[in-house]
Amino acid sequence: MSISPLQKERLQYSPKLPGMLRNGIAEICVKEGEETKSVADQEKIKALFPNTYGKREITFEKGQNTSAAKKQVVGVILSGGQAPGGHNVVCGLYDALKATDRENVLYGFKNGPSGLLNDDYVEFTDEFIDQYRNTGGFDIIGSGRTKLETEEQFAVAAEVCKKHGITAIVIIGGDDSNTNAAVLAEFFAAHNTGVQVIGCPKTIDGDLKNEDIECSFGFDTATKTYSELIGNIERDANSAKKYWHFIKVMGRSASHVALECALETQPNICLVSEEVAEKKMSLSEIADYIADSVANRAANGMNFGVAIIPEGVVEFVPEFSVLIAEINELLAGAKADEFNALPTWKDKYAFIENGLTKESMAVFAILPETIQQQLFLERDPHGNVQVSLIESEKLFSALVKAKLEERKQTGTYSGKFSPLHHFFGYEGRCAFPSNFDADYCYSLGYNAFMLIQYGYNGYLSKISNLSKPAEEWVAGGMPITKMMNMERRHGEDKPVIRKALVELDGKPFKFFEAHRAEWAVETAYTYPGAIQYYGPASVCDITTRTLALEKGE
Amino acid sequence: MSISPLQKERLQYSPKLPGMLRNGIAEICVKEGEETKSVADQEKIKALFPNTYGKREITFEKGQNTSAAKKQVVGVILSGGQAPGGHNVVCGLYDALKATDRENVLYGFKNGPSGLLNDDYVEFTDEFIDQYRNTGGFDIIGSGRTKLETEEQFAVAAEVCKKHGITAIVIIGGDDSNTNAAVLAEFFAAHNTGVQVIGCPKTIDGDLKNEDIECSFGFDTATKTYSELIGNIERDANSAKKYWHFIKVMGRSASHVALECALETQPNICLVSEEVAEKKMSLSEIADYIADSVANRAANGMNFGVAIIPEGVVEFVPEFSVLIAEINELLAGAKADEFNALPTWKDKYAFIENGLTKESMAVFAILPETIQQQLFLERDPHGNVQVSLIESEKLFSALVKAKLEERKQTGTYSGKFSPLHHFFGYEGRCAFPSNFDADYCYSLGYNAFMLIQYGYNGYLSKISNLSKPAEEWVAGGMPITKMMNMERRHGEDKPVIRKALVELDGKPFKFFEAHRAEWAVETAYTYPGAIQYYGPASVCDITTRTLALEKGE
Repeated sequence: MSISPLQKERLQYSPKLPGMLRNGIAEICVKEGEETKSVADQEKIKALFPNTYGKREITFEKGQNTSAAKKQVVGVILSGGQAPGGHNVVCGLYDALKATDRENVLYGFKNGPSGLLNDDYVEFTDEFIDQYRNTGGFDIIGSGRTKLETEEQFAVAAEVCKKHGITAIVIIGGDDSNTNAAVLAEFFAAHNTGVQVIGCPKTIDGDLKNEDIECSFGFDTATKTYSELIGNIERDANSAKKYWHFIKVMGRSASHVALECALETQPNICLVSEEVAEKKMSLSEIADYIADSVANRAANGMNFGVAIIPEGVVEFVPEFSVLIAEINELLAGAKADEFNALPTWKDKYAFIENGLTKESMAVFAILPETIQQQLFLERDPHGNVQVSLIESEKLFSALVKAKLEERKQTGTYSGKFSPLHHFFGYEGRCAFPSNFDADYCYSLGYNAFMLIQYGYNGYLSKISNLSKPAEEWVAGGMPITKMMNMERRHGEDKPVIRKALVELDGKPFKFFEAHRAEWAVETAYTYPGAIQYYGPASVCDITTRTLALEKGE
Repeated sequence: MSISPLQKERLQYSPKLPGMLRNGIAEICVKEGEETKSVADQEKIKALFPNTYGKREITFEKGQNTSAAKKQVVGVILSGGQAPGGHNVVCGLYDALKATDRENVLYGFKNGPSGLLNDDYVEFTDEFIDQYRNTGGFDIIGSGRTKLETEEQFAVAAEVCKKHGITAIVIIGGDDSNTNAAVLAEFFAAHNTGVQVIGCPKTIDGDLKNEDIECSFGFDTATKTYSELIGNIERDANSAKKYWHFIKVMGRSASHVALECALETQPNICLVSEEVAEKKMSLSEIADYIADSVANRAANGMNFGVAIIPEGVVEFVPEFSVLIAEINELLAGAKADEFNALPTWKDKYAFIENGLTKESMAVFAILPETIQQQLFLERDPHGNVQVSLIESEKLFSALVKAKLEERKQTGTYSGKFSPLHHFFGYEGRCAFPSNFDADYCYSLGYNAFMLIQYGYNGYLSKISNLSKPAEEWVAGGMPITKMMNMERRHGEDKPVIRKALVELDGKPFKFFEAHRAEWAVETAYTYPGAIQYYGPASVCDITTRTLALEKGE
């Protein structure tokens, strides 16, 4: 196998643990804190988790290790979308497990939670795991999107665990996967299986975040990768001086990724979905907001710019959500066949015009034709519009172009507008983890094993104080139930970890809000450049602007 | 102005000069080599360049500087598309000029060659230039695409030079810009202006390359940036195991960028335009070639992969070029109005069917509808198809999809095929230059001043032995006329620098050819990761695989 020079060097990197975990396994003692309660709906959550609710917060400290000697057989699962650092969680877990007892065993269930159900696994060895240290990707065992949520699945999981003598399962996943980890933990406890479940907070989207989890892993590396590219494009825009770049970035519903990239690169425009929803902005208002920047810059001789568009923004535009719902209704069941049978787009357009409300038709009418067609022609197996496939970067540039043409008519704009489009997502999910993510992930995995060894169940591996050097990080654990509340999902009340959206009164957004008017008109770009793994700590070891601002730094 | 931590650190980086230029200005002497002749059409080139043809090859050495004392007033111009390192050419030029005599002056003409014609310039100072050391972009003075090629322009240029007492012009550009530099040099010599012209070889496309110029600057950084992203996507593909990524990369006509990225990342497929032309491949044959890889991998359970598509490939498909020519003819002049007046796509399609030859219609018919429409609806001001706007990554994935559906019918394929599309170009043109490009560019600029100081005109700044450490690089100059031949351009025979396409019997392509069958079926990806500026030399200081292979390393 051919490996790159960087990969070869990264295999040698020693991730930094929190200071309190650096003294060797024999010198890690546990300190229990207060009993916990869920962030909301305490009675309901308690009733659903009688065996795992209300447990104490955990912190590790330097001191005599008092955990009981016990052979540990642990299974680990990567769940959902890739995030840089996943391999290091596995490595940290493996190293702590083997440092505790060479006889301990770590299994990796393959291709996500389905690996556990199918009993499809690999047993880790030094030779195998050493090929993956500090590398990106989830290819060590693969990932998958099967959800572990039914009693039947849990029963199968218990059988597989029993067969292999598994004492604990570590689930590396996002909010949904960790919610499911909590339910599985409760099942295992209720059925006296003796199997513990520990979760680790993963997602590049940054939406698994709360008063206990300062950030999910992968967010740092992914946003640094996107910021590198956005900064490069900004510099290109400022050199060529003739293009407006519309850049969509991944991040699902939340705008954490877009906002962090904006804080790193200071573009002219960054939409924030949560603000669009809060202010109930229409497509036309958003287009005008961007067009104002284009026109003001053009008036200063700058016919170029950069706008960041969060992946999920169109779903947050109220009138657009209504339009989507109406389209889904309009094409439900047999009506789709009737629609599909219409010979030309003109006929189809008439059908649409006839079927939508006047308000939604007004929204539909201003969309560029390619987006109009996309909405009707590319639907999922259930016949629904695939919102995630909408090329919103092209949608907004087309709307802005129309606005500018209007302004030309009225003489309020006389510039040139040449848009280019980009979408960054897959580029960042499997990058080599930054030093921060390499250290954080290794610590999460190492720490997860300490939680197992001390007998905890239904906990999330927790490393905090992350804006400080790793030496000062705090390692511990938190009952997952503490992060839960009840939410309506698919017509049922479900206990879930609350998804963190961008808070409009939070410091990261406030900082952005205070500067964006200047950035919209000036060329205030910053160029982060590529992630650095060696060299000055000021370049290599700092994490996100989001976390720094949240911590008041 | 807010600058990033990396930028702050990079401002402090000291670029490495060739060993022979490291002893101070007083210790640089010149050695003249053989008289030169153009690579072809010697008599014609000689006749066109009576004053600058046949000059001697130059090398600098350690020794007593014997150049005449003379106040130098130099103007520098950035021409054409951005390439990482352009700022360092200016910095090297400035440092050598000021080290020779603090009274010397460097002007930067703004926004490309038009800055010279419009007498629009900035005078460089230490404070100003220090903000740009080792940074990407051309924003220091901007760039532009005005061509300096007419006698009238040359006369204006001579006037501007006279006005400022300019003794030399340095033009940083690609093959066309350096061709024009040679013509300008001849004009200046013929008119006894006393103004010298020196060129520097710039382009990320890598197509300004010959027996004297080992590589153009920017190619190293741009291909490393694209390879970082392609590697990340490969790792994502190999983790998620469900997508085929079709990645188009910049590079204009030549496939140097695509080939270098393939050598760095070992994807399943990389098209090489020059081979497509040589083998006269049809779209259908190319689609079958890719579909073979998809099907073979699917048979081994791998429904994922990565294919690299060079930007210019469709122009190299003979049947496609014919189609484009026919379309241009079909819509020439008033016929476009007739076409545009047709109410529906169906009517337009009938018009097209009627107008194309049977052969071209067969090609047109297999294109996906979005591409068909693009060909007819998005034309340049002259009514011509805009070939560079064709989304060839989507074109090929659609053709492959159709092939796979055929194979499903015949039972020779039963996999899943979910394509995703990317285009990388603007992301790499303004990246922070790699150490290689930072060093190479600084050396080119420094060296350009030595050529000026020693009185040379119509030379290209030449640094060679580039696959070795900078200490061993060789600095000198080569008459631009030496690289020229006569080519037919716009109906006229013109003296031009020969554009370098990928040589199918060259070592880089041969290496690729020897491995690609294995890469097409196996998952042999390599993950280069982000450009590193600090750390092990094995990671930070090596240049391209292309150059290493060309040098037999």
